[in-house]
Amino acid sequence: MTQHTPAGYFRDWTITELADQLRSGETSAVELARAALRAIDQFDAELNAFTAVDRGAAVRAAEKADAELAEGLDRGPLHGIPVAVKDLVEVAGSRTEMGSAHFADHVSTSDADCVRRLRAGGAVLVGRTTTHEFAFGPTGDSAHRGPARNPHDTTRITGGSSAGSGAAVAAGMVPLALGTDTGGSVRVPAALCGVVGFKPAFGAISTDGVFPLAQSLDHVGVLARTPQDCRTGYRVLAGLRSTPSQERGQAASIGWLDPNALHPTDPAITRAARAALDVDGLAVREVGIRDPDLVHRGFQGIQHSEAYANHAERVSEHPELFTDDVLERLRQAARTAGWQHVRALAARDQWRREVQELLSEVDLLAMPTTCVVATELGRRETTVDGVEVDVRAALIGLTKPWNLAGVPAVSVPAGRVGGLPVGLQLVGRPGREDVLLAVAARTGG
Amino acid sequence: MTQHTPAGYFRDWTITELADQLRSGETSAVELARAALRAIDQFDAELNAFTAVDRGAAVRAAEKADAELAEGLDRGPLHGIPVAVKDLVEVAGSRTEMGSAHFADHVSTSDADCVRRLRAGGAVLVGRTTTHEFAFGPTGDSAHRGPARNPHDTTRITGGSSAGSGAAVAAGMVPLALGTDTGGSVRVPAALCGVVGFKPAFGAISTDGVFPLAQSLDHVGVLARTPQDCRTGYRVLAGLRSTPSQERGQAASIGWLDPNALHPTDPAITRAARAALDVDGLAVREVGIRDPDLVHRGFQGIQHSEAYANHAERVSEHPELFTDDVLERLRQAARTAGWQHVRALAARDQWRREVQELLSEVDLLAMPTTCVVATELGRRETTVDGVEVDVRAALIGLTKPWNLAGVPAVSVPAGRVGGLPVGLQLVGRPGREDVLLAVAARTGG
Repeated sequence: MTQHTPAGYFRDWTITELADQLRSGETSAVELARAALRAIDQFDAELNAFTAVDRGAAVRAAEKADAELAEGLDRGPLHGIPVAVKDLVEVAGSRTEMGSAHFADHVSTSDADCVRRLRAGGAVLVGRTTTHEFAFGPTGDSAHRGPARNPHDTTRITGGSSAGSGAAVAAGMVPLALGTDTGGSVRVPAALCGVVGFKPAFGAISTDGVFPLAQSLDHVGVLARTPQDCRTGYRVLAGLRSTPSQERGQAASIGWLDPNALHPTDPAITRAARAALDVDGLAVREVGIRDPDLVHRGFQGIQHSEAYANHAERVSEHPELFTDDVLERLRQAARTAGWQHVRALAARDQWRREVQELLSEVDLLAMPTTCVVATELGRRETTVDGVEVDVRAALIGLTKPWNLAGVPAVSVPAGRVGGLPVGLQLVGRPGREDVLLAVAARTGG
Repeated sequence: MTQHTPAGYFRDWTITELADQLRSGETSAVELARAALRAIDQFDAELNAFTAVDRGAAVRAAEKADAELAEGLDRGPLHGIPVAVKDLVEVAGSRTEMGSAHFADHVSTSDADCVRRLRAGGAVLVGRTTTHEFAFGPTGDSAHRGPARNPHDTTRITGGSSAGSGAAVAAGMVPLALGTDTGGSVRVPAALCGVVGFKPAFGAISTDGVFPLAQSLDHVGVLARTPQDCRTGYRVLAGLRSTPSQERGQAASIGWLDPNALHPTDPAITRAARAALDVDGLAVREVGIRDPDLVHRGFQGIQHSEAYANHAERVSEHPELFTDDVLERLRQAARTAGWQHVRALAARDQWRREVQELLSEVDLLAMPTTCVVATELGRRETTVDGVEVDVRAALIGLTKPWNLAGVPAVSVPAGRVGGLPVGLQLVGRPGREDVLLAVAARTGG
């Protein structure tokens, strides 16, 4: 266990502040890129947040960004900002391994759509972050190049699958990191590492060039220090105009969901998340879920069927290249029947209608992000209130419902439990991401 | 084998002619209903086209239709016309068994949407027609109350699953019958019985109240003596205004598909179907399918998964109530994996794009309806050109592609092969059903 949480340069600054400093000449893109590379050098041997660091490319991109700004070409709020990209997303010229020996030393030949947006927005890509192998796991500790480690306790998981992105932002190595989220893979590491993680509505950011886990659940998302910084990254990635938010979330009505309706949850985490909502002007009332079983039936049938469809040939031809963890999950995934997939799709449709109804009664839903704090690396069982639970189920039990529904969701820090960060999750209406992030900015743990 | 094909009253008149006679007073709805019931009495012991005959209800509906016409209330082209409805469609107050002992003596308590449309259009429902058990079979010879028999040779199948609807129209018992078509279940019995069978685009007629076989492939369709009569029935069922067609199909371009690209086809049937297109003014050219394998992969994975999802509890709780034929097929259907279903959906999407492309080059596609003529009752293997083939595959090999694509298709008589009727199939663009039926009316076998 580390005694001091690693604190790189970007623990101290928001993207908005950095953007101001870049334009006032207080700093330069090259300085920021060097600060990122220095923090990686300093902390990453311990954290393993990065699977590849693109030093030369980062410095060149930063030089270009500085030159452009000097010439008056301003690409917007990410211009000159260092960004890390999950090792599941194609970045031309960069080693992209999907966390798997199947893609050992694979170098991408083209950019994913979302990466193209980052570059067009002037962002400086510094490296690639650890993903759970093929993103198939919320622990982040089963990957070709080893597990990412939680900056708050390096014997523990970061959560995943966007494991390295969580660690990299938490340790101040970068101010913004790209993740993907199929059942919670952005929000879970954000919660466990004490940063903000946001996935917009399904389809809001293109997944072209992102290695699929389960196409109808996959979302691209961002991790950063603040909801405002997530908003900045999101708007660039979604191709939206970068305007200051008019949204203050002042009059938002919030429905609090008892997390135990979805999965047994550590009462201390529930208390911390609920307390983070005790902010002047937020109207919070309890709301209930009619049929939580729809989530379990819908999510697993769809995730299993789509995941195995993406890997069937790899499993039969080269099973030895998978980690045991992911191979076992894939073999289980293969056992879902076609008729069960059909029923899962029907459950999904019914769940979407229920969520739509809930979100017509309140502006946002709120609950904890995870049911447990970061567990020890490699552990697959833990206890909640004395009851033994599966770690994976406890990590995504509260996040996967919103992938199934396709609605935007954010995790914000909600203090600590037993010395480890926990998250408050807020869920909003598709297209109203600004309201969601404005309210998120007002909460505090 | 019958020496003479049964010829009920409605072998001699089209719906358009009957509608004129009703309005001129030459006939009455009660007379027509009695003619239908008489033909059923005369021929149905031999053909088993009907599973239930609603005598009292038919006469009462006919009396009402006559009274309305006398009072000047004209409900349109089906007013007073006898119609038979497949035993898979809910008709309030009528015995609806889905061809299965699972629903023995089940009486519907409400009307299917399509039946409601028929009643609102003044149609006189005379009875219920044999379906292959739960519509899961294109032979029509496996049903709770026994097989329907082909009016042209009662030792042979009608084709199915809308088996009784094909026999009832072919034998002149009714001028119009409702069917459903998941892989060819309207067009196959139409072809094998020598009548016209039409299914519009997916979703054009509501399937609410129709027992599902495979929801994403199920269509409601009609069987009648002429394409014009199919058009009349279709427009009432689809809730479209009943206007005379302006469409003559004069300039339609037709792409002929070699059926062997999809399934080995009796060359005599191919010749007969092709000859039925040799009509002045039809521009026919050969077109090819790029990837026919998409059809097989897409159709089976979807049909199997959806069908088993509809029957899983019946199979596990009361397998003994199924016919052996359908139970065996359902058990095979259960073996499709979820990931195969996912790939089937992807193949379906790709096939749809290919069909859309084909139908942007020509107005219509043409090919035979079936690869074989009506086989003997109960047979499951036959030969095509000396090669042994599965009867079911040979019956729907040329029709199922258009369920998968969701595009409208019609089968029209194309003469005889070995004394038995065969069909020409025409396939058109969604929303352009009128063009399709206008061209169909110009072909002749």
